[in-house]
Amino acid sequence: MSAEIISVGTELLLGDILNSNAQFLAQQLAELGIPHFFQTVVGDNPERLKSAIAVASDRAELLIFTGGLGPTPDDLTTETIADFFSTPLIEKPEIVEDIAQKFAQRGRQMTDNNRKQALLPEGAQILYNPVGSAPGMIWQPRPNLTILTFPGVPSEMKVMWQQIAVPYLRSQGWGQVTIVSRTLRFWGISESMLAEKAATFFDLQNPTVAPYANLGEVKLRISARATSENAASALIAPVEQELRQIAGIDCYGVDEDSLASVVGDLLTTAQSTLSVAESCTGGRLGQMITTISGSSTYFMGGIISYDNAVKEALLGVDSQALEQVGAVSAIVAEQMAVGVRARLNTTWGLSITGIAGPGGGTDTKPVGLVYIGLASPEDVTNFEFRFGDRGRDWVQRASACSALDQLRRRLLERGV
Amino acid sequence: MSAEIISVGTELLLGDILNSNAQFLAQQLAELGIPHFFQTVVGDNPERLKSAIAVASDRAELLIFTGGLGPTPDDLTTETIADFFSTPLIEKPEIVEDIAQKFAQRGRQMTDNNRKQALLPEGAQILYNPVGSAPGMIWQPRPNLTILTFPGVPSEMKVMWQQIAVPYLRSQGWGQVTIVSRTLRFWGISESMLAEKAATFFDLQNPTVAPYANLGEVKLRISARATSENAASALIAPVEQELRQIAGIDCYGVDEDSLASVVGDLLTTAQSTLSVAESCTGGRLGQMITTISGSSTYFMGGIISYDNAVKEALLGVDSQALEQVGAVSAIVAEQMAVGVRARLNTTWGLSITGIAGPGGGTDTKPVGLVYIGLASPEDVTNFEFRFGDRGRDWVQRASACSALDQLRRRLLERGV
Repeated sequence: MSAEIISVGTELLLGDILNSNAQFLAQQLAELGIPHFFQTVVGDNPERLKSAIAVASDRAELLIFTGGLGPTPDDLTTETIADFFSTPLIEKPEIVEDIAQKFAQRGRQMTDNNRKQALLPEGAQILYNPVGSAPGMIWQPRPNLTILTFPGVPSEMKVMWQQIAVPYLRSQGWGQVTIVSRTLRFWGISESMLAEKAATFFDLQNPTVAPYANLGEVKLRISARATSENAASALIAPVEQELRQIAGIDCYGVDEDSLASVVGDLLTTAQSTLSVAESCTGGRLGQMITTISGSSTYFMGGIISYDNAVKEALLGVDSQALEQVGAVSAIVAEQMAVGVRARLNTTWGLSITGIAGPGGGTDTKPVGLVYIGLASPEDVTNFEFRFGDRGRDWVQRASACSALDQLRRRLLERGV
Repeated sequence: MSAEIISVGTELLLGDILNSNAQFLAQQLAELGIPHFFQTVVGDNPERLKSAIAVASDRAELLIFTGGLGPTPDDLTTETIADFFSTPLIEKPEIVEDIAQKFAQRGRQMTDNNRKQALLPEGAQILYNPVGSAPGMIWQPRPNLTILTFPGVPSEMKVMWQQIAVPYLRSQGWGQVTIVSRTLRFWGISESMLAEKAATFFDLQNPTVAPYANLGEVKLRISARATSENAASALIAPVEQELRQIAGIDCYGVDEDSLASVVGDLLTTAQSTLSVAESCTGGRLGQMITTISGSSTYFMGGIISYDNAVKEALLGVDSQALEQVGAVSAIVAEQMAVGVRARLNTTWGLSITGIAGPGGGTDTKPVGLVYIGLASPEDVTNFEFRFGDRGRDWVQRASACSALDQLRRRLLERGV
């Protein structure tokens, strides 16, 4: 019994978007232990989609479609599948109602185009879409062939897969072997450095340990295969423990943790509050912190002092410092942190000032030079980073992450 | 005459890597005007690779393979292709020499494994790899079928494609046609609504018009085929003009434009400055604005008033309003906008207050309810949005985009 992924969308054939859906589903199938031998990408064209279905339904028992479920005329996946299996389409009133409700919620009118999304092949079950308007389906057009369809929007597809498809597949006897993975997350250590420290682990067979790096963050994924989740987790535990010992404080979290969530937990435990002062990141640090639901209990807010006048007026940065050493300096970073902490009356004040680029760099102050200030009830400190000229987005992101990471290390040293 | 991309590699089926090679090749084929209807991903398995070749060689005249050219035992692409077309492998001394040289340069000894990389099907030409050790091939196993193979390493594949494959394909009469695409970007109109307005355009053959939607943004892609870029652009121009007329102000930009870049251009033209006051977005509006290099000329900064105390102390929001109508209200949004404009002494003040969720919603104020305030030299206005309970990230993003969009509309109405 094997699965096959069929990604539908001319935008994929034009190279407009990366097929990240296929990667996500591939990882999920691997974790469920469902064999998966082929992936196909085909455009929004009924004849070609049918030929892809013909090939795939001939060699796999589970066909997973993404894309082409939208309201527009070139969204043809559902009707083409129905047509291939010579099955009529039937309007599902529950879907009409669901879509109408979602539109009402957003104060919008449902159009006739959306009605099209309520049509499913006779005998198909609705694969509800809790997020967007396009539902998918679960259908067995014939014995030993199961079809799942998902919208192409990754956020919607993922929720539908995890909440509805996975439980359904397990109930149908798919994925009896379980692969459990645990991802350790690191900040402040390079991939090569971590790879050296953990070298001996990369030869393990079960669990396996593999390194990944992405935008300055390094991860180690530990994956174990077993007949039950508990058995797999039991294989992972000791390896995780050893790796954590090797990495020490550089390992900031696991799986879904983010620097913002970890710092949030530490602040909550310490019953401390935080405010931020941002220059070159323009609000990104605050944005990261407030991605965490419930952050309002410890995050009071901040000041985006993009212009120097704002640094002086709202943060009390002294004009001499700005003139003599410039806005991108250790002194100004510290003054910003002290200023925002006092102004917003918080336990901690965290600041960022730097050169995001591409312009604005000099020999003494190159693009990527960033100072982070951290004001506590006891003192104020600063940290210098040189991220290099790797693009504005990279520098801004690395700056915000490094600021959170410095606060994290400080909170941990304090033994929170 | 159409091309097909076959990506070989079990790591793709495990979801360990994104198939960025397929996206690159798809873009290249589109730019060359080479039709491309299918992509296949298959693992390092001879039987399954053969079945993929059987399917692809039956429906395309140009097969482009990536991956499986390395020295290890599971690199089987070349020998499997040769086997499928019942053609013997022959060692190419030039390749042996080339590999030996490259190894010498790196002070390493060539292994017998590498010798395997020198074997090509009888009659195939070498597709030199100027970067790495694994060469590809150009082969016509039969009339009207051309095979190109590339290593899976993106950097090597890209150089080989651009330096060798493209000139070869053009010399063979491929890619005489050029496809030019232009993407119109919209905010404030649903995909289904836009699709109805532009319905008649979706039947066009050249140029074609196709809608896409992503995270609240809607796009229309206009693609034209012609023998030259100018000819293609000439086909696009009138259609773009008509679509812009139909869409009116809902069309905010084209291709690489973003709401932040468009607003930035308008503010620069008007020589106006902007400050922001953010509650539920926590800095995301400022972050979006400062993704634009040079935004410091019009963006002075802002205040992240996540906590009500900050709204009062730094923005002068009156405590009565907070008590009586609450922080998520039209009045508070306006007071935040007026406050930050005065505090940072800017032409415009833009504010956001709302409920990002998942918690904090009530019957009268559900998750997704957001008020945007806009203070100008003349007046202050507010806008109410109901984004629904679609996840915190969605609501925060939609709020920041809608705030920029309202400022954009106002600047345009003013005839900037």
